[in-house]
Amino acid sequence: MTGILKASRSSLVDQVVAQMESLIDAGEWPVGERIPTEMELVAEFGVSRNTLREAVRALVHAGLLQSRQGSGTVVRSSSMLEAAIRKRVDRADVLDTLEVRHALEREAARLAAIRRNPEDLEELQSALILCKDALVAGDAQRYLTADLALHRAIVEASHNEVLIELYGHLIDPLEVSIRNIFEASEEETGYIQVHGTLVDAVIRQDPGGAMDAVNVYINRFKETLSDR
Amino acid sequence: MTGILKASRSSLVDQVVAQMESLIDAGEWPVGERIPTEMELVAEFGVSRNTLREAVRALVHAGLLQSRQGSGTVVRSSSMLEAAIRKRVDRADVLDTLEVRHALEREAARLAAIRRNPEDLEELQSALILCKDALVAGDAQRYLTADLALHRAIVEASHNEVLIELYGHLIDPLEVSIRNIFEASEEETGYIQVHGTLVDAVIRQDPGGAMDAVNVYINRFKETLSDR
Repeated sequence: MTGILKASRSSLVDQVVAQMESLIDAGEWPVGERIPTEMELVAEFGVSRNTLREAVRALVHAGLLQSRQGSGTVVRSSSMLEAAIRKRVDRADVLDTLEVRHALEREAARLAAIRRNPEDLEELQSALILCKDALVAGDAQRYLTADLALHRAIVEASHNEVLIELYGHLIDPLEVSIRNIFEASEEETGYIQVHGTLVDAVIRQDPGGAMDAVNVYINRFKETLSDR
Repeated sequence: MTGILKASRSSLVDQVVAQMESLIDAGEWPVGERIPTEMELVAEFGVSRNTLREAVRALVHAGLLQSRQGSGTVVRSSSMLEAAIRKRVDRADVLDTLEVRHALEREAARLAAIRRNPEDLEELQSALILCKDALVAGDAQRYLTADLALHRAIVEASHNEVLIELYGHLIDPLEVSIRNIFEASEEETGYIQVHGTLVDAVIRQDPGGAMDAVNVYINRFKETLSDR
């Protein structure tokens, strides 16, 4: 009898965890926002307070939720993979993470040159225009946002789901350090030319040219990094 | 009073989870093996059965442990990152995962050519000899084990911790599908020549040559895959 009760308690927690995971995954519980109160969730899921608390704690341990003293429970990551990569990147050397980022960008550029479709090309060209506009306006923060969007558009055009996901999870925790590095740099004009070359190579369906362009801006980026 | 009790119960579970994570991380609880019984753990950690069970369930949700009906609880992954990547790769297209693997190998080859030290060179040369021996003996399974060890040695020689870890987590769940693909292939002799070229380029400290060699075997591998 006790055995059956144990099993059903455990599988109830499993169910609540799975439901919460899919609410987070679907963006119905967005990253950075507070989840509903314990009372609301007990009513919504129709479980006991103990079962609900255990499910919340399991997601806290996995890094998806964060309990903040006095301000409830907040969504911290959109998936287990994102949470695990974030934790790893947080304790990693910035250069190590950048090298992995560049490895993924180089392959993404190659694949994008092969697989890009008309919608990808539109995305790429409008992302490039936003970069140029921000540069003309001399707005460094807006430029960086546009630059990250351009790189994401290249990676999306690879049509490789694993690559897209790993790249996204790796780039988010890097963004702050990239912003700091770029603020100190005056090299933006050079970068925009290389980005133009990269987008052109993708348009021409030239995988080798696309990878070469990535290599050029990787090397420049590393020089900027070592000059600091 | 209830508030204080709740807080201490939750932080006790946290402590037990952290202790179990470090036992797994240190290999004292090895992947694939059963963890001690509930009774032993209750004594070891000095906590109640309920606290212990909640900690175990949290690690089951995170993918580090697996509860098997009738055969206790088994270690499934060595870290949260490994568990999350395994889950992602399990539901991914094999070609998508291979492309990411190749992106990491190409960057690893480039970095290994720059950073390899005398110990790396010894590792690489003995891994290459094991590949050749297995090939001469016509032992496909032994060849594949030696081949994976050679690729790991290249990645280790990159001295990039994030790359080494991501690559390891990505390659483990791929191993079964790679074995199946290779069993059907007669191309081993070609592969071993390319591997010799790759190791030579790393020895000569030629990053471009190392990346070219990776590109050659990637293309061959994809042909093998598409011929099936």
